[in-house]
Amino acid sequence: MLVIGNELLTGKVGEANLVVLARSVRNLGIVLRRVVMVLDDIDTIARDVRELSSAHDWLFTSGGVGPTHDDVTIEAVAKAFGVPVVVSEPMKAMLEAHYKERLTDGHLRMALIPEGAALETTAEIRWPTIRIANTWIMPGIPEVFQMKIPVLEAKIGKDAAFVSHAVYTKMDEGDLKPLLDRVVAAYPTVDVGSYPRWNEPSYRTKLTFDGLDTDVVSRARDAFIASLPQGEPQWIE
Amino acid sequence: MLVIGNELLTGKVGEANLVVLARSVRNLGIVLRRVVMVLDDIDTIARDVRELSSAHDWLFTSGGVGPTHDDVTIEAVAKAFGVPVVVSEPMKAMLEAHYKERLTDGHLRMALIPEGAALETTAEIRWPTIRIANTWIMPGIPEVFQMKIPVLEAKIGKDAAFVSHAVYTKMDEGDLKPLLDRVVAAYPTVDVGSYPRWNEPSYRTKLTFDGLDTDVVSRARDAFIASLPQGEPQWIE
Repeated sequence: MLVIGNELLTGKVGEANLVVLARSVRNLGIVLRRVVMVLDDIDTIARDVRELSSAHDWLFTSGGVGPTHDDVTIEAVAKAFGVPVVVSEPMKAMLEAHYKERLTDGHLRMALIPEGAALETTAEIRWPTIRIANTWIMPGIPEVFQMKIPVLEAKIGKDAAFVSHAVYTKMDEGDLKPLLDRVVAAYPTVDVGSYPRWNEPSYRTKLTFDGLDTDVVSRARDAFIASLPQGEPQWIE
Repeated sequence: MLVIGNELLTGKVGEANLVVLARSVRNLGIVLRRVVMVLDDIDTIARDVRELSSAHDWLFTSGGVGPTHDDVTIEAVAKAFGVPVVVSEPMKAMLEAHYKERLTDGHLRMALIPEGAALETTAEIRWPTIRIANTWIMPGIPEVFQMKIPVLEAKIGKDAAFVSHAVYTKMDEGDLKPLLDRVVAAYPTVDVGSYPRWNEPSYRTKLTFDGLDTDVVSRARDAFIASLPQGEPQWIE
């Protein structure tokens, strides 16, 4: 994922799209490996699009699409793929139908796409989501980003699904370490996470067990639970 | 900033430290240029630490410090700087004093540091923050991350301070574009941002004017306000 926007790196706005994309692609069986966040700078964005799109199966950009001077994502993605920016005639027609006599040159900038890009839609979501090769260009406004998630899900399709279990304990990580090390060694295909909390009265450390094989993940979790001292765990999810 | 943690890239936990660091360094006059988020993988973290620390004045890592198998940041940062991981005797003594007879090998892992790292403290915050060269190793737990911000601020010191103004309008970005283009051209040292909102009754687009020179930023904002049609702006901050 490439997240674009000065407002995020200056701390004016909290980033809100990552968690939405992360959960969505995980349900499709995709591992989100890397997120990069950059300022509204064409050359930086173009370089990161080139690197991320060639190193990964999919790249999702967030932000920098719109009519104003700080919206440079379309131009940067075009540059990354070595193509010009062109007017999409179907998108121009949709803008004309929507804005009618109020249409400005500013609005028409929203019909610009990298040449050769696909316009992805579903029956429910008619305003196109722009994709060029493996790179999906998503809007930064959280409400609009979320609206477009079903388009990704419909077009990418489901490969597999991760299962995830959580176990909550009142033990600290120092005491849990030898128990966790045993589970990690015995179940190499299970991703075991340990997340301590401060100022949380009901538990101290949350342990997670994730993987693609339901049975193996359950066995790893149960082996860990069986190794806990009496009175633990607090609860299981 | 390098943010580390499987829990963030799987969408289990929302990232909470970026906005805190972004605001803090901005108050010191530092531009946060790049954030990278990666999984708990030593080689990936080491490569990103090498790249980010050599390309920037400062690097701040968040997460992956603690006693369990998924806490690999110390080892990765040591690898990036080509030094071994060693036991910090002062930190070991603090752990012994705190845990006494309950001390485990797991707890003692929290005394590991890259060889040659500095232990940064203030009078108020006695548990050290580890820094090696220009790289600050910060914890991932948001409450602890925030506690350590005053240490950064005290040690890095203040270079300059950004000023920021905001203007709220009911106009859409397509109509604002020509007005914004004029301000951007006339005030090249002012960073002008445009942030539309959906589902917000009180305004439609927020414009921001940021820079290091108070007078120039105010003039840019006032020139923009003077160019707005009657009835705008809704309000100014």
